[in-house]
Amino acid sequence: MFIHNKRLQYTVRVAAPNPGLANLLLEQFGGPQGELAAAMRYFTQAVSEDDPGRKDMLLDIATEELSHLEIIGSIIAMLNKGAKGDLAEATQTQADLYRAINGAGNDSHVTQVLYGGGPALVNSAGVPWTAAYVDSIGEPTADLRSNIAAEARAKIVYERLINVTEDPGIRDALGFLMTREVAHQKSFEKALYSIQPNFPPGKAPVVPPYQDLYFKMSQGAEPELGPWNQGKGLELVLDPQPAVDGGDGNAAVQLGAEQIANLKTLARRTQSDPSVDPVTGAELGQGVSTDEPDL
Amino acid sequence: MFIHNKRLQYTVRVAAPNPGLANLLLEQFGGPQGELAAAMRYFTQAVSEDDPGRKDMLLDIATEELSHLEIIGSIIAMLNKGAKGDLAEATQTQADLYRAINGAGNDSHVTQVLYGGGPALVNSAGVPWTAAYVDSIGEPTADLRSNIAAEARAKIVYERLINVTEDPGIRDALGFLMTREVAHQKSFEKALYSIQPNFPPGKAPVVPPYQDLYFKMSQGAEPELGPWNQGKGLELVLDPQPAVDGGDGNAAVQLGAEQIANLKTLARRTQSDPSVDPVTGAELGQGVSTDEPDL
Amino acid sequence: MFIHNKRLQYTVRVAAPNPGLANLLLEQFGGPQGELAAAMRYFTQAVSEDDPGRKDMLLDIATEELSHLEIIGSIIAMLNKGAKGDLAEATQTQADLYRAINGAGNDSHVTQVLYGGGPALVNSAGVPWTAAYVDSIGEPTADLRSNIAAEARAKIVYERLINVTEDPGIRDALGFLMTREVAHQKSFEKALYSIQPNFPPGKAPVVPPYQDLYFKMSQGAEPELGPWNQGKGLELVLDPQPAVDGGDGNAAVQLGAEQIANLKTLARRTQSDPSVDPVTGAELGQGVSTDEPDL
Amino acid sequence: MFIHNKRLQYTVRVAAPNPGLANLLLEQFGGPQGELAAAMRYFTQAVSEDDPGRKDMLLDIATEELSHLEIIGSIIAMLNKGAKGDLAEATQTQADLYRAINGAGNDSHVTQVLYGGGPALVNSAGVPWTAAYVDSIGEPTADLRSNIAAEARAKIVYERLINVTEDPGIRDALGFLMTREVAHQKSFEKALYSIQPNFPPGKAPVVPPYQDLYFKMSQGAEPELGPWNQGKGLELVLDPQPAVDGGDGNAAVQLGAEQIANLKTLARRTQSDPSVDPVTGAELGQGVSTDEPDL
Amino acid sequence: MFIHNKRLQYTVRVAAPNPGLANLLLEQFGGPQGELAAAMRYFTQAVSEDDPGRKDMLLDIATEELSHLEIIGSIIAMLNKGAKGDLAEATQTQADLYRAINGAGNDSHVTQVLYGGGPALVNSAGVPWTAAYVDSIGEPTADLRSNIAAEARAKIVYERLINVTEDPGIRDALGFLMTREVAHQKSFEKALYSIQPNFPPGKAPVVPPYQDLYFKMSQGAEPELGPWNQGKGLELVLDPQPAVDGGDGNAAVQLGAEQIANLKTLARRTQSDPSVDPVTGAELGQGVSTDEPDL
Amino acid sequence: MFIHNKRLQYTVRVAAPNPGLANLLLEQFGGPQGELAAAMRYFTQAVSEDDPGRKDMLLDIATEELSHLEIIGSIIAMLNKGAKGDLAEATQTQADLYRAINGAGNDSHVTQVLYGGGPALVNSAGVPWTAAYVDSIGEPTADLRSNIAAEARAKIVYERLINVTEDPGIRDALGFLMTREVAHQKSFEKALYSIQPNFPPGKAPVVPPYQDLYFKMSQGAEPELGPWNQGKGLELVLDPQPAVDGGDGNAAVQLGAEQIANLKTLARRTQSDPSVDPVTGAELGQGVSTDEPDL
Repeated sequence: MFIHNKRLQYTVRVAAPNPGLANLLLEQFGGPQGELAAAMRYFTQAVSEDDPGRKDMLLDIATEELSHLEIIGSIIAMLNKGAKGDLAEATQTQADLYRAINGAGNDSHVTQVLYGGGPALVNSAGVPWTAAYVDSIGEPTADLRSNIAAEARAKIVYERLINVTEDPGIRDALGFLMTREVAHQKSFEKALYSIQPNFPPGKAPVVPPYQDLYFKMSQGAEPELGPWNQGKGLELVLDPQPAVDGGDGNAAVQLGAEQIANLKTLARRTQSDPSVDPVTGAELGQGVSTDEPDL
Repeated sequence: MFIHNKRLQYTVRVAAPNPGLANLLLEQFGGPQGELAAAMRYFTQAVSEDDPGRKDMLLDIATEELSHLEIIGSIIAMLNKGAKGDLAEATQTQADLYRAINGAGNDSHVTQVLYGGGPALVNSAGVPWTAAYVDSIGEPTADLRSNIAAEARAKIVYERLINVTEDPGIRDALGFLMTREVAHQKSFEKALYSIQPNFPPGKAPVVPPYQDLYFKMSQGAEPELGPWNQGKGLELVLDPQPAVDGGDGNAAVQLGAEQIANLKTLARRTQSDPSVDPVTGAELGQGVSTDEPDL
Repeated sequence: MFIHNKRLQYTVRVAAPNPGLANLLLEQFGGPQGELAAAMRYFTQAVSEDDPGRKDMLLDIATEELSHLEIIGSIIAMLNKGAKGDLAEATQTQADLYRAINGAGNDSHVTQVLYGGGPALVNSAGVPWTAAYVDSIGEPTADLRSNIAAEARAKIVYERLINVTEDPGIRDALGFLMTREVAHQKSFEKALYSIQPNFPPGKAPVVPPYQDLYFKMSQGAEPELGPWNQGKGLELVLDPQPAVDGGDGNAAVQLGAEQIANLKTLARRTQSDPSVDPVTGAELGQGVSTDEPDL
Repeated sequence: MFIHNKRLQYTVRVAAPNPGLANLLLEQFGGPQGELAAAMRYFTQAVSEDDPGRKDMLLDIATEELSHLEIIGSIIAMLNKGAKGDLAEATQTQADLYRAINGAGNDSHVTQVLYGGGPALVNSAGVPWTAAYVDSIGEPTADLRSNIAAEARAKIVYERLINVTEDPGIRDALGFLMTREVAHQKSFEKALYSIQPNFPPGKAPVVPPYQDLYFKMSQGAEPELGPWNQGKGLELVLDPQPAVDGGDGNAAVQLGAEQIANLKTLARRTQSDPSVDPVTGAELGQGVSTDEPDL
Repeated sequence: MFIHNKRLQYTVRVAAPNPGLANLLLEQFGGPQGELAAAMRYFTQAVSEDDPGRKDMLLDIATEELSHLEIIGSIIAMLNKGAKGDLAEATQTQADLYRAINGAGNDSHVTQVLYGGGPALVNSAGVPWTAAYVDSIGEPTADLRSNIAAEARAKIVYERLINVTEDPGIRDALGFLMTREVAHQKSFEKALYSIQPNFPPGKAPVVPPYQDLYFKMSQGAEPELGPWNQGKGLELVLDPQPAVDGGDGNAAVQLGAEQIANLKTLARRTQSDPSVDPVTGAELGQGVSTDEPDL
Repeated sequence: MFIHNKRLQYTVRVAAPNPGLANLLLEQFGGPQGELAAAMRYFTQAVSEDDPGRKDMLLDIATEELSHLEIIGSIIAMLNKGAKGDLAEATQTQADLYRAINGAGNDSHVTQVLYGGGPALVNSAGVPWTAAYVDSIGEPTADLRSNIAAEARAKIVYERLINVTEDPGIRDALGFLMTREVAHQKSFEKALYSIQPNFPPGKAPVVPPYQDLYFKMSQGAEPELGPWNQGKGLELVLDPQPAVDGGDGNAAVQLGAEQIANLKTLARRTQSDPSVDPVTGAELGQGVSTDEPDL
């Protein structure tokens, strides 16, 4: 069960309203690397997790991410607070309000016209949050790696937002949020490496001939050599040829007689006959004439 | 520039058609952990990558994932090949075709009715592939971690599909594809750790007081202790209180006089007055009478 | 700030695993009328709400909905718990696992293959949750009505799920969840009617001639009369004619000379000339012959 | 069957082209609170409605909303009409056209580059319309409340658009459209309250202990008291404790022996062992050295 | 303005309820090739069309497609009518209702649980309709081709549905709907070829060297020759080499000094150093030991 | 199998960075008419195509479109290259970076904040690419028409982009890409008309009375006559009346007794009773008083 405390996990002090900056910050509210994505990623993992330590950790961090969602949402609400009243009460001229709504040069108009100045679960382009952002698959050696990566991404997006924010109170709060992503990454790393072995992930054994090969699929220049294509555990195949299993590289299936008959009928009926060069719609459309084309 | 070779990277031998199995395999064609997601993840990173070694590697692996997309698509096409002709030619009765289309107990009806038996870029639920699955953000210490995690997830989904597949030819091809994810993970790991330092990701420094704290946000039971909440680099805060910065935990913004006036007008106009207990629509709807409610 | 308590708000006792039922229950986890939608609807409203009573209420109910999300997610996890281990460990034959995965006759295969048996933020069709489900717009006389409607919808979907669920422990928990929607609806009704006036919503005055008219746009049968088309405050217009403002019903704009010139050029260039009956691609495709069609 | 009349339901007179304003108006064409959402909401309800009065009303209003879709679309087309010809004919310099396309400071560039100046079924952020906006569930006591709320929302978005529009002809047409939403809300209210009882919605009875409780889930400040948390039909529970049913607040399921065995194997295989503090990838990445890390 | 007539454009006589068939028919209600997509495609084109003949035609056909949407929706409603009452009134046992809901073997459970038996704007997989299906771009020589293709696709999906439908009344109505797509295709063909020239579409001239070349990008087998790669207007390039413009095939941009400096700093900071073979997380995860790995 | 060559199919020379132009060009990278959509359209068709000529052609063109995706992505990367380093290294002031990010007046801020300056698979509005853009249905006489239309649309979007681009190197590359769409359209036209007959598409015969009728559904003005509504193969029906089959235009289904009984119960329970004019929530909300409304 969740309980809420009216005080934020971190105090928010905004110097002045700025709907344009609010729009950028939506990335961490309703964007793919934002706090809802983080909270839901860990919460859904926690619900089906049976390992007591991991379940405990996932619930701790999911709950903190919900608290972060509240912080970033509160910053956005503060930045839009003036615009919210202005548009609702309409004491300015229409021209002034029109300019105010479009003045940021980004998508802040959406927040104002559609959402009335409140933070919505969209990213800075106005795209609604989707659970397609949540990549949990229910296997801890994969999900913990996903969590590690997600924290790394969130750290970077906060860093970019700090780089474009002058307001010291917002920079302070964003610095807290950015730093917490680093702390969370450390926890997920510890949990991952506490599983031994954790690589390869899962249970099914790999097929030996293929786990150590690096296929040079991009050609046309000297290969750049590095430990990622040759070295411990990786062998460079410079000119891979299909099929690498030694087969003919075709796809085949065994069908019954009735299905083969139907497919043959279908093939005949829809054959693109290569033996003639037909008049086409494009030729009709090249405009020599309309009712009696010179075909 | 891409060049295509008509032979597959791995030979596909399907024993018998099975639209239901084809539907499950769509997860790795048009699903979130599938081969298009993998190919596009690495390809888009490659296009803007300036490090010669990483760019080379990303292009190699992106190209191989496109080749995997072709393999998995070819298996799906083989499994649906009979159904494709049957539905197009309709030599069976309607009742037989209806049963065939719904008989798998999963979403294979979509592949047949909407896509005519061809593999479509949807997952096994029929949800169209979306670039929201691609989580690249243009920073290598984050993107490489995302790639590592993506390969781990793909390995697991292949493992699950192998677990439900009897056909030896398909198991063979899926085993190849599963194993290649492991090899790719190794390459991405090498590339990540060849960047030093790579943690914390990015450039902006963290805020020291917060990078080592673990907040115990989920309570009501004895905390499960582990290296993820206490130990090297992490200190457990058992009962975190808002606000952790020592402030009042409120959100505030400084507004101009006109904006404050508009907000006050708005507040007055839309106040939910707590001093009366109004008759509501729900009470009107409780059905004592309709034209003269006993309010 | 949120705090989590490891105990659920309501105890969950599941009699036996049932992935098919779990799939149906996803409607209230990641579906449009489900608990995440409810929680996010009220949470986002709360963040930008300035009325102290409403903000307090929205935070209370949002927090309870998060607790409900945990309950429904836990039921789903219990129903899938056996399947989760079976697929990961694969001690059964592939044929048995294939049958188990497709046996429910609904989309439970997605939960197992893609999400490993964990509850995912998708609905019972496997469609990922989207913030497009959240219809908050930042005006309380509209949002409270949206909340009232949302609670009514959620009550009904729970009712349907109870109607198809035999398990007494699940019926018990669903009954609690269903009933809480009714209680929430009552709260939102009270908050709405505590705003006076709350109709028409918003501030801008309506245009008098049009607020009381009911246009009979669907014809071809005797009109069904009722208070919704005639009576207090509504006047039936039986045969509405365009344009109801008395104008010519056209759309017009004043353009500059250069723009008019460009539009004229465009019009000439792309005119579909009605004076000839051209040969078309369809006629070419009717198959008389391919290289010398009888046009 | 639908019949169309070439004259609009309301005459549209646009003073001057303005692609930026057109972009904002897309909210009511292809946005979540727009006219297509309204028309489809009522139309789909009508198709399966069996009550003759409600079916009649739903068809009337759905048809009028289609007519409104045409009005708002026509305004958008007029506002973009000049831009349409300019971009197609390209008689200006590229620099001038580039400036024209990006000058509005909002998303009007999408309408021009992608849609050629025609109104598209997207909102003002360029997000395509989705049926996820339509919340009909096939139960009139819920759907009518949804309709009431939808009309209230649409009224507000029109109000905001009027607040930022100077053009008198557009303000006039938007005023008509806004007012009609109010009239429709009245009709839906009458239809809802003509069902008695309509609360609680649906048929299944509520569970008595829980329908009158208000759980104070958000704490940390004095509770704001109002009729929404105490008063007629609602009793305030100040400090709700899990589990409110008096149970232990756990989730449990009864599994078979084989499933338990598989889960135990899975648990052992993937345990995060809390007894050691492992070296992690993050530590490898902190950069002391690369080939011989000081672990 | 639209007017509705209560009678359908075509009479619907359904022999018996069948929620499974209803689910398949959703493809033509809320699916990508369905009637809403058709109606909206033509309607949005009509709104911004200035050519009087095309505008007239687009409005005619858009209006007919809306009428078709009503027909297909009515069939779906009839097929679900029994299930609608059964689930709402719940006079059967839960076990019977559960079986009824999952018995079709497709996604009809979604229609029942989420939509209460009413037709929803989703396809047969339960995916909500999206305006991403509408590909109009505001240029008639492209849009008319899109319309021709859309009618061809819709014809085929109807054909498939007829192939799996036994009910004579439904087959009759689907036959009508399928045939009308053919008639509409003919109209769009006439309108396209009444524009002369209509190929190449648009105004900008092509670049001569490249409009007649066919690049053989897929190799590894003898090329299949046909008029599509050699013949009138197409010349086969058997072994295309990058770059086809004779340049070096690189991408370059001219940057300022400050930007170059930043990029160099970034490159140095994030270089994947190929000269060492680092220990990676994967190696840590291979499980030799956890606290003192043999690196 | 795919092989990649590091050189582009066409050389890219960008004169100066311009994130705003980059944002517009995203339409052809991750937009609905862009190169990924083209590549995936043809690739998925190729995978299930059995006609050797068409399969060969589809693979050729799919592979070329992937090569075009690389070209357009490379242009976007060049245009954003400076911004990428600037934001990552943050050597400018926050105010300068904020201005740089919002200065384009379009959605380029998304590319920078969320994607770090790399090309992402979104369109110019920031909407992620979706496979809903791919309209292949597995029937060549439909799919080839879809391909023809898709090439026409892509040609036009390139034309518009050329119209707003001053940079000669970019104009040159876009000219190449635009021209190739024309060449591809020619190939698809040849392949379509090499199938004889190809109209009507598919196999099922049309219903004769309806294939030649043109229903005048849009009225209120003199009909515009043209070959698209009268002439060869089309007969104009000026005043179509429902139902055109001569039936009563109703929808009916035969139900069993139990289902009828449930529907009757449902109807009674949810009837909107037209005989009374009930007090509604709207009336309660009109604000005369709150606790004792004058009803």
